[in-house]
Amino acid sequence: MSQATDSYISTHSARFMDELKDFLRIPSISTDPERTGDVARAAQWVADGLKRVGLENVEIIPTAKHPLVYADWLHAPGKPTVLCYGHYDVQPPDPLQLWKTPPFEPTERDGNLYARGSADDKGQMYMHVKAIEALMAVHGKLPVNVKFIVEGEEEVGGASVAKYVGENQAKLKADVALVSDTSLYADGMPTLCVGLRGLVYMEVEATGPSRDLHSGLYGGAAPNAVYGLIELLAQAKDANGRIQIPGFYEDVAEPAAAEIGSWKSLPFSEEEFLKKEVGSTCLTGEPDRMVLERVWSRPTLEVHGIAGGFTGAGAKTVIPATATAKVSMRMVPNQDPDKMFEAFSAWVAAKTPRGIQTKVRRLSGSPAVVVNPANPAIDRAAEAFAEVMGRKTVFTRSGGSVPIVGDFAHHLGIPTVMMGFGLPDDGLHSPNEKFKIENFYLGTRTVADFLEKYGS
Amino acid sequence: MSQATDSYISTHSARFMDELKDFLRIPSISTDPERTGDVARAAQWVADGLKRVGLENVEIIPTAKHPLVYADWLHAPGKPTVLCYGHYDVQPPDPLQLWKTPPFEPTERDGNLYARGSADDKGQMYMHVKAIEALMAVHGKLPVNVKFIVEGEEEVGGASVAKYVGENQAKLKADVALVSDTSLYADGMPTLCVGLRGLVYMEVEATGPSRDLHSGLYGGAAPNAVYGLIELLAQAKDANGRIQIPGFYEDVAEPAAAEIGSWKSLPFSEEEFLKKEVGSTCLTGEPDRMVLERVWSRPTLEVHGIAGGFTGAGAKTVIPATATAKVSMRMVPNQDPDKMFEAFSAWVAAKTPRGIQTKVRRLSGSPAVVVNPANPAIDRAAEAFAEVMGRKTVFTRSGGSVPIVGDFAHHLGIPTVMMGFGLPDDGLHSPNEKFKIENFYLGTRTVADFLEKYGS
Repeated sequence: MSQATDSYISTHSARFMDELKDFLRIPSISTDPERTGDVARAAQWVADGLKRVGLENVEIIPTAKHPLVYADWLHAPGKPTVLCYGHYDVQPPDPLQLWKTPPFEPTERDGNLYARGSADDKGQMYMHVKAIEALMAVHGKLPVNVKFIVEGEEEVGGASVAKYVGENQAKLKADVALVSDTSLYADGMPTLCVGLRGLVYMEVEATGPSRDLHSGLYGGAAPNAVYGLIELLAQAKDANGRIQIPGFYEDVAEPAAAEIGSWKSLPFSEEEFLKKEVGSTCLTGEPDRMVLERVWSRPTLEVHGIAGGFTGAGAKTVIPATATAKVSMRMVPNQDPDKMFEAFSAWVAAKTPRGIQTKVRRLSGSPAVVVNPANPAIDRAAEAFAEVMGRKTVFTRSGGSVPIVGDFAHHLGIPTVMMGFGLPDDGLHSPNEKFKIENFYLGTRTVADFLEKYGS
Repeated sequence: MSQATDSYISTHSARFMDELKDFLRIPSISTDPERTGDVARAAQWVADGLKRVGLENVEIIPTAKHPLVYADWLHAPGKPTVLCYGHYDVQPPDPLQLWKTPPFEPTERDGNLYARGSADDKGQMYMHVKAIEALMAVHGKLPVNVKFIVEGEEEVGGASVAKYVGENQAKLKADVALVSDTSLYADGMPTLCVGLRGLVYMEVEATGPSRDLHSGLYGGAAPNAVYGLIELLAQAKDANGRIQIPGFYEDVAEPAAAEIGSWKSLPFSEEEFLKKEVGSTCLTGEPDRMVLERVWSRPTLEVHGIAGGFTGAGAKTVIPATATAKVSMRMVPNQDPDKMFEAFSAWVAAKTPRGIQTKVRRLSGSPAVVVNPANPAIDRAAEAFAEVMGRKTVFTRSGGSVPIVGDFAHHLGIPTVMMGFGLPDDGLHSPNEKFKIENFYLGTRTVADFLEKYGS
């Protein structure tokens, strides 16, 4: 990176942090209908921020749900175009009582910035904006052409941006996309993510009796919707966590032996993963797969929540009439979301216990993604990463899903540089989400350096 | 019944109904800590009502939780003493949106009185009070000695009244107890209940990871508390509903062949029970037992509610850290609540899946009860019932639990006349609970007639 760019970032670091805190104070929870106004406020905040650093054609684009923010700077003829993506929406903060400081009052503690969205993804998205500011301030121009597309529905399936990307291919045309919504493999280790799992998110509703019944008068003869749902879902896995849905593993593309080999050379302590990150008595899942395979290259079925019957304080002796569960499948390369959803729905229909009726509703779906690491943008990103952090860049996958990466590949035909600066213990989607403050600045430097290298 | 008593009840029927409605307007939900004041208000209302009809020594007795109400009239030397029991507390009304008219705004519709507590048990308890009023008004005295004990914790396990009965055996000494908290077998059919199931009510809590985890980053390797609880509880029954807890059926006392024979002669349509009462696609439970056995003389295990993880609108991709279920066992004669609780707890400990930790908490427990029908009080009650309703009295059991009946047997050594006027479709514990208005008056007459017959 140029010395001047580096200095600029150092000089303005305190202001960058203050701005990020302002951004994090907006509770832009995309899944909560009562937060629609806050989500819109966050979109406006992003648009203002993009304008301030010198980007042009800044636009807040209304959608069926939450707005998109677009901006560009296209004055580098002959240079490649980078499409920067991020999301300004966040997960709900519940359970609230587990937060040490309020989720929307960003707080610095032990070198970390605690707030919902600090790492996922406001903090990371804002590194892109501040890298642009530095480059513009220092050079009066950018080394490449740049487009920004920032969405507000990433945490609820990203339907609007997917539709927009499909319908605006010329406008968004670029050579590569840049996404910072993943993590370093370990603190201090430059990491490019070259694979993501896909996701189908569903709701399963079970109905038993036509109303809640008195369990004394009907218990023993009447079906129970909660128990029916329990009986159904318990059949989804065997004792080793192997998923029992017919065809579930049929289309799985296994990683190449070389990729598996490189994962084996990564530092990994099952003990530490268990104790420091998971915090349970033991790990679970397919015993014949190493943990990194289980979370990166194996499909899963997870129940995210369940509710039914009486769950208040004390005792109520009902046989519940209805129960609902949130269920998802994470998919790996070559698995098709539609086919997987069909397989799950058919399995539910076949396994629903007597006396119970079930409905499966699909909330979202996106396939897995793999990026070919033999790409000049990936090469430049790996170089920038290594230079800023002083260590060789490793290539990993993530078990999470960033559906937009699939949309960019599918609609724009471009690969994505997934350059994330989170840490494995950042607590994404959990109470006390944090972002390491140093990584915010390292990220800003690495993004600037990557754009300089990619443009030269 | 004396003609005069009968006339008195007819003449004052409209006022009786107005009074009952006042009583039903008090939301005395014993399980809801926010309703403690309303529960106390209901106790005061009962005390005032008992005083008004001429009962003496009226007392509101504070307890560790909700107050008891006591009253007596002991001026019939040489006559037997009847201990009238009822409860003034009610179940929570949720789900509120399913009520056609508000649960605490009693509404007459199609010959029924709709309100939470109309049948269980305010309306039925108030029949006792109005029978006393009629007898006092007509005769200036009662045909028997009478004691009232009315509690406010029946729907939450009845701990305080159980303690009080144990500690005040002399004060409560009687020849028989009278409880109206059960149903007619069918509309118009005089029914004495001579058996009740017992109940152990529990809470099972499962813990997996130390915090909610991102299902993308950890899914496939981290235990899920909701799924662990599902896997655990699903093992409690086989596909035929037979409970798999070791020793679960060991101590079950089967009803005598004659009793089973009399049940077989009761009118019962499985089709109607399914369609009009349960309202599901089919009945469940032990296939080799007739439905009346399944609900009257077979033990059950029921999950009343379950909660864990994200259950709001939309999608949240967490691996939940905790989950809780409310679970009960209904017990039949000869099963011991302590032993059954131990068996369940041991089974939970043995079957808890890997990576999950579980705790079982007991909220309440009471054994099953059987009353010997060869008892003069039962005989007089059957005669009064038959006379008022013009049809032979049948002897049934109920699958529900009225723990106080066990306490009366255990501490006072007395049987209980269970003389209930509810109907099977009254919707106890459900939305739109109702009490047939005609049955309120029939009940008042039958109670008065029983007391007259028992005293002569």
